[in-house]
Order: sequence, then C-alpha cells, then structure tokens
Amino acid sequence: MSEKKEKIMIGIDLGGTGIKIGLVDKAYEIIAQTTVPTRGERPYQQVIADMGNAALKLLEESGYQVSDCLGAGIGSPGMIDSKNGIVLYSNNIRWDHVPLATELETYLPMPVYINNDANCAALGETVKGAAKGCSSAIFLTLGTGVGGGIVIDGKIFEGGHPGGAELGHIRIASEGRKCTCGREDCLEAYASASALIGDAKRMAERFPNSMLWELCGHDLEQMNAKMPFDAAQAGDPCGQALIGLYIRYLADGITDLANIFRPDMFVLGGGICAQGEKLTEPLNRCLRENCFGAFVSYVPPIVIAKNGNDAGMIGAASLVASMQKEA
Amino acid sequence: MSEKKEKIMIGIDLGGTGIKIGLVDKAYEIIAQTTVPTRGERPYQQVIADMGNAALKLLEESGYQVSDCLGAGIGSPGMIDSKNGIVLYSNNIRWDHVPLATELETYLPMPVYINNDANCAALGETVKGAAKGCSSAIFLTLGTGVGGGIVIDGKIFEGGHPGGAELGHIRIASEGRKCTCGREDCLEAYASASALIGDAKRMAERFPNSMLWELCGHDLEQMNAKMPFDAAQAGDPCGQALIGLYIRYLADGITDLANIFRPDMFVLGGGICAQGEKLTEPLNRCLRENCFGAFVSYVPPIVIAKNGNDAGMIGAASLVASMQKEA
Repeated sequence: MSEKKEKIMIGIDLGGTGIKIGLVDKAYEIIAQTTVPTRGERPYQQVIADMGNAALKLLEESGYQVSDCLGAGIGSPGMIDSKNGIVLYSNNIRWDHVPLATELETYLPMPVYINNDANCAALGETVKGAAKGCSSAIFLTLGTGVGGGIVIDGKIFEGGHPGGAELGHIRIASEGRKCTCGREDCLEAYASASALIGDAKRMAERFPNSMLWELCGHDLEQMNAKMPFDAAQAGDPCGQALIGLYIRYLADGITDLANIFRPDMFVLGGGICAQGEKLTEPLNRCLRENCFGAFVSYVPPIVIAKNGNDAGMIGAASLVASMQKEA
Repeated sequence: MSEKKEKIMIGIDLGGTGIKIGLVDKAYEIIAQTTVPTRGERPYQQVIADMGNAALKLLEESGYQVSDCLGAGIGSPGMIDSKNGIVLYSNNIRWDHVPLATELETYLPMPVYINNDANCAALGETVKGAAKGCSSAIFLTLGTGVGGGIVIDGKIFEGGHPGGAELGHIRIASEGRKCTCGREDCLEAYASASALIGDAKRMAERFPNSMLWELCGHDLEQMNAKMPFDAAQAGDPCGQALIGLYIRYLADGITDLANIFRPDMFVLGGGICAQGEKLTEPLNRCLRENCFGAFVSYVPPIVIAKNGNDAGMIGAASLVASMQKEA
C-alpha cells in the first residue's frame, strides 16, 4: 500500500468532444485514466459535474483519496483568465466567462489550476517530452488552427493579460488570406493543417493530372494533410510546390518567434508532425538561414513533440507542479 | 553634505558617435552628466578607458565617491551577452566579442551591468517615463532601424539566448523588401524612419507634382521623416498614402506583439514620435480593430516615450536597480 501514498496530480484535458482525465505521478507517468464525453451544448455546470465526478470515480477505482492529490490541472481551449480560473471564451465548447476552477473545486476539494491547452502542452513537453530539461521552449500545434505555448524559466508565459501567447495570430505575409480571428495573413491561415489541406484541394482541382488528385481518390473532400507530403515525396511537382511553400510559411513564423524569444528549443505538435524529419529537417535549415545574427547567436533546434495523445493530461498535471513551485 | 551620501547609479549610453554618462539618483533624476566621443575605430580598450575615466571625473566633479555608487549600467547597441557582460557584436561600433563589463570594472570598481540599448530604454520608461508603474511593456524605437525592448514583471526580457528581443526582425509582409539583417520583409524594412524616408523619396520622384517634392526643396537628399507627415496633414494625396501605409505596417508589427505579449502598454521612441497623436491615434485604432479577441481581452494603449534624449542614461541606470533587486 505504501507506494500508493506518493502524492499524485490530476491532469484534465478538456476537449470539444471528450474530457480526458489522468492520474499522474511525480515522474509524469499516467497511472490511470478515463474519458467522459464533453457534450458542451449543455449548461456548463453539468459538464463540470461530469468532469468532477469522473475524476473522483477514477481516484476511488485506482485506490487513491483526495488527500493523495497535490491538485488538479485543466488544459482548456480558448482564452483563459488563469489567475481567476475562468474560461473567458472558447469557440470550441461555446463557453463565455465560465468559472471553471471554482466550480470544479466544489467536486474536487483540492487546488485547481487552469491554463490554455497549448500552454499546458508546451509545459508538459519540458517536464516529460521532447524539450525535457529545457528552461525555455516554444510549442506550436499544427491542427485546425495553430496553437502556441511559451515556457520561460520553466513556467508558462501567457502574456501580461488574456489575449497573449496567441502564436498562431502573428502576421507573416501580405497575400490577403483571411484568418479565423478576423485579421488577414496570420500564421494560422498558412501553417495550420487546415490551411495545407485547403491549398492541396485548390491545387488538385487546378491540376487534375497531379498525383494529389489521384491520392484523394478524385474526391476533394477526402484530402488530408498527409497527401501533399506523400505527393512531394513521390516527386509530384504540385506536391513539392505545396510542401515547399508550407515549410516556408511555417519557418517564417518560427523565425519570428526565434528573433523574439530565442528559446532553448521549438517543439511541434499536431497530426502533421507524423511527417517527422520531412518536416523538421527543412524547417531547421530555413531557421538557420534566416534567424537574426545566426552566425553569432544560438539557433534553437526544431523538434517533434513526444507526449502524443497524452500531451493534454501530462501538460495539465505539470501545471499543478509548476504553480505550486511558484507559490 | 548629507544629501550627497544617498546612493546613486551611473547610467552610460554608448552610442556610435558619443558616450553619454549620467549620475542618476534613486528617483531616476539625472544629477550630473558628461559626454565623450566614441571614436569606435580605435581599439576597444581605449574607448572603454575614456568611458571609465570620464565617469570617474564626473563623480569627482560632482562631489561623489565610487563608494556612493550602487553600480554602473551600460546600454549598448548590438547583440549583448548580458550574463557575461560581453558585446557579442555591434554593427554600430564594429565591436566583436568585447568584454565591456570586465574591462570597465578595471576603471570603475563597482558592479557593471550591460544590456542592449533598446532594452535599457524600455526598462527606463517603466521606472520613469511613459509606462511608469507598468509591470510589462514593449518599447519600439523607430530610427535608422526598429529596435525593441521587452519588460516582463518589471525586468528586461531578452530571450533565452542572445538574438532574442529583436523586435524589428519579425516578418510582417511578403512584398519582398530586403532587410538589413539579410531576411526579407522584417518590420524594420517597413516601419523604421529610414524605410519611411526611402518610401517618401520614391514617391516624390514618381510624383514630382506632389507636395513631398516641394517640401524636400526638389532635392531628395533633403527628405526626412517629418515631410510625409506634413504633406499628409496638408491634404497631399501622396503624403496621405505614405502615412496610411506606414501606420498600417507599424500597427501590424504592434498587433503581432500584442498577440504574443499582451503587455500593459506599448511605448514608441525615436524621432518619428515627435508626431505625437498623429502617430498614436491611428495606431491605437488599428490595434483595437485587429488584435486577437479584442472584444473580451485587454487592448494595450500605444503611447509616446517620455525620457527623450536622457532615455539611454536613465535606462542604463535602471538596469543597475533591476539587476540588484533580482539578485
């Protein structure tokens, strides 16, 4: 029984579809986990009740008590007021000023901390993952959008006020691409998986003799972010043009962030990262060629995230340790 | 004599032409100051000897001793290794790995701190200036280039490694403008005073019936950054187009930085800032319209720096206080 008495953390990954809850030990290994559906269309109180009750059940089933927990961390999509534990707004779950921490504490009597999911994932990669041991790191997740997380001196940096660390929303071009945020030409409009898929669809439509058109089975709706990489790999000129541009756009955003933060490391997450070195090798080359004062300064390596599907839970748990170290 | 015993700081503004040295009290008032020519073409040891001897002479003439000083701060152009007190390189004075702090300490037996001049100016504006009392601020200086300084939690943030906080070197467009850093389309290539003057020259040349051509006395070499503002103010379409674009470019860079840092305030320095509200009013409007989540988040005001010609000395002195608070 004695090993069960080591303090643990609860890491909660709040997603649009499901809520993943993990019990995480001090080495950031997941001891036990469960998932409940989000069903975000319900009143938020019901969503949080499900979250709290599922966590309590998981603790009980795993032989832990509330008193064994250092606290619970939640990685949430959207704009977060981390000081007050409030989800200011989330497109994803349609929440508006939801007092998530206070509400969850009525179920889980322990310190509850919230932060943006990408921020949590960034922190998680520095405690267990690709940037383990780094004191500073920038994390970019390439999915529907481009999410960003910043770690400085081993802590999440979210900016002075809500609305900071929105790394997908820096302007990298002037082609007039509309971004979901309302502005034009944000990194997200060029470097998200959605942007790559959109570009691939347009390219396949315009060049029906290209391999892209074959790979999607002559159905643009089947296009995914892997296909342009596969086409490029096979020597298809359309695929090569697409990937060349995609790398260039992403490298532009990363170079900006290098010139601002010059972190120990850049970490990339999201489905596109399955491409591994096909992605990181040309990105690293572009960064070395373009970052400010590369000949005299440190050029951070760009690597692929390692925490995979557990990134949300591990990151949320690492938030607990980070906040309690700070306090 | 007793008021003379209050501890003071030495603030040194190392410029390409002259070295300004100020004795600064704890309220960041300059008690006494002197200037010596830089003559940066000499061996660095001679430049630093002049700096140290001039500081000692100023102390003596003002009735202070070395023991009255908390330390000396130096704001230096170029890329700085602040931990080790080294100027890694400076285009301006043509220095390469100069151990400025150690060398100056042989003349001034007190703690010597170095940081980039724009970083120092940023810090100075938060202790005495436009952002007084702010815990976070971003400073941009619009001159030959675009220099940047970041203050987070009352301290200079210079990035994890040398090469950070280079805020003039974030990409804001894709028009293919060459930047002095070797990359294309950096903020500096659009929003520096030099960029505005270059644009104004091209415009005046192309439209010799414009007011710009009159204002420069039909001599493009006489063009300065004030003329396009004057032409715009007087209703000249060329002037209005130039200033409209200039504001847009600068606002793009500031919006990026708002989405990353969301500081308490943005502070602008450099000669162009004599334009005052003609500059800040449209910039503030652009930022409110474009920054991420403006409807739910804090939109930082953009203001003009207040420390003027003393910014370098005050900023360098504030570095001493900041470093000793941190220690």
